[in-house]
Amino acid sequence: MAMAKRGGVDLGGTKIQVVVVDAKHKVLGQARRPTPTTGRPVDVKDAIAAALVDAADAAGIQTAELSGIGVGSPGEIDPRTGSVSQARNLPGWEGSYPLADTLAEACGAPVAVGNDVQVATNAEFELGAGKDYRSLLGVFWGTGVGGGLVLDGKPWLGRGAAGEIGHVVVRLNGARCPCGRRGCMEAYAGRAAMEAKARREVAKGRKTELFEIMEKRGRERLTSGIWDRAAKKEDPLALELIDRAIEHLGAGVASACNILDVECVVVGGGLGVRFGEPYVRRIEKAMMPHLFASDHPPDVKVAALGDLGGAIGAALLAPTGRRSRPVAKAATADGAGG
Amino acid sequence: MAMAKRGGVDLGGTKIQVVVVDAKHKVLGQARRPTPTTGRPVDVKDAIAAALVDAADAAGIQTAELSGIGVGSPGEIDPRTGSVSQARNLPGWEGSYPLADTLAEACGAPVAVGNDVQVATNAEFELGAGKDYRSLLGVFWGTGVGGGLVLDGKPWLGRGAAGEIGHVVVRLNGARCPCGRRGCMEAYAGRAAMEAKARREVAKGRKTELFEIMEKRGRERLTSGIWDRAAKKEDPLALELIDRAIEHLGAGVASACNILDVECVVVGGGLGVRFGEPYVRRIEKAMMPHLFASDHPPDVKVAALGDLGGAIGAALLAPTGRRSRPVAKAATADGAGG
Repeated sequence: MAMAKRGGVDLGGTKIQVVVVDAKHKVLGQARRPTPTTGRPVDVKDAIAAALVDAADAAGIQTAELSGIGVGSPGEIDPRTGSVSQARNLPGWEGSYPLADTLAEACGAPVAVGNDVQVATNAEFELGAGKDYRSLLGVFWGTGVGGGLVLDGKPWLGRGAAGEIGHVVVRLNGARCPCGRRGCMEAYAGRAAMEAKARREVAKGRKTELFEIMEKRGRERLTSGIWDRAAKKEDPLALELIDRAIEHLGAGVASACNILDVECVVVGGGLGVRFGEPYVRRIEKAMMPHLFASDHPPDVKVAALGDLGGAIGAALLAPTGRRSRPVAKAATADGAGG
Repeated sequence: MAMAKRGGVDLGGTKIQVVVVDAKHKVLGQARRPTPTTGRPVDVKDAIAAALVDAADAAGIQTAELSGIGVGSPGEIDPRTGSVSQARNLPGWEGSYPLADTLAEACGAPVAVGNDVQVATNAEFELGAGKDYRSLLGVFWGTGVGGGLVLDGKPWLGRGAAGEIGHVVVRLNGARCPCGRRGCMEAYAGRAAMEAKARREVAKGRKTELFEIMEKRGRERLTSGIWDRAAKKEDPLALELIDRAIEHLGAGVASACNILDVECVVVGGGLGVRFGEPYVRRIEKAMMPHLFASDHPPDVKVAALGDLGGAIGAALLAPTGRRSRPVAKAATADGAGG
């Protein structure tokens, strides 16, 4: 019997990253596609299916040979049905779309869908920087600041909306957050908020190389790579906004630790992975003035699975292959009659 | 066979509240003593033992007839040994003291010790305002602001220091907290911080009836009752400081809910219980601008067990009477040989 192979899909606002892994989570094939920016959910599903075909091809199999596929998705997930609602950074996805069912039909393998941030947290817990711990806070520092929790070895989802560490209030009546509220950690530390602040500063006459680097690279947004480049060039505005982000990350992550007293904090996300170890040490230092149990701080680590963490984590959601294919209805009826 | 009766002790900085309850948590007897303000841990232990004798007497039994005794204590608890360290609001208690062992010897019944705030949270979860929920945040609004968590039906203690919701940062670089840090929720909402602020305002020339009421009542501190009285008299400074406390409680509790997405928040503590329903509705309203899942807020309730909640909750820690007395060593040896 062949060892069960699984597909994992990290569905992001800008790209779809897909992996095919074996039972030991080794990546056998991978593929990446841009996320469609126009159209409807079915177009996103088609792009995912195409990326899965590519990744399966790289692994030397067909998608129907996968024992299962897991998808980490933004938006509101119904984990039982695999439907996704209100994925506002995906095109035309204000309503609900049966992603699991349609993708399973396209690929010929069962599909499970989970929250993208929780999926990446689980991956770090099972296989990455958090594998030596029983409790974990995942902090995904990117366009926004997402959070995921593992407590006593199990994901903690609350009523489905836990982990919104980006919207911890760190400055009552403070800066406007992309979510519309005021004073959230993400209002200072999220890449979207950092870019909006940089644009306001430029409009006020501040000089910065951030937007020159952006234009040279043919981008429309200040990506993690652009922030990293500007920081390396010691651009004063970039350094100032990164310092500000780290100060507020420190306060918000420490607040979460004061509530939960987890063993470990894992920092990932576009900026977290790009900036890596030295910046994560700075976040750790920024937490210290606010940690109540300051004599017993949590370990603070960089996400170990890097860019593929979301997709590898999604593969953990997939059925493990004990029942590799949905049983045909006729066969079930036969079985019941036999 | 007599139904197992248990003792419960709420060990606070100002008073020791003791109850004797039956197997259905009904209070059969209670007693209250002031907490010694001078001396050493042994004096506190003696005062607890004396209060237990009084409560047992009121219930018509002797302490040695209790199947067990539970204590909710401040400080750092070792739940296995029942030792308590660094209970700084108790006299001479900077070091470690074997409270469970010494109290068990004094009373002739086994003793278990737990964290006071967690004990009160468990009581609300098992018997009080949280009994219809599986996940719960207890917020104890008193001298400080304590927090306790029940997640998926079980207390969540982290590595022993979880629940420090009073030290969630709500205003980065904000007001100095009694803990020494800056911007903690407790720096605005704790009764000690509120009193310190009132004293500073009076020193600056602000008028208030708060301290007149205190003197009339022969108190040295602004108790919950004094704040309540001043609020009812519409003392402007009292109203202003209570508003400020509620605004910051709203932000801090909402932050905790954004991280945990619990089903229910129970507000207790000296101020919480004294102010009751109308103020808890105000805290709920103050949470709303900061709740990420604002279309699905948690239920927010007043602690139902009131002043006795801590002691009743402590009794839940006590052995349930299956083995009502430590078996004598000789009997054990006989048993092993028989």
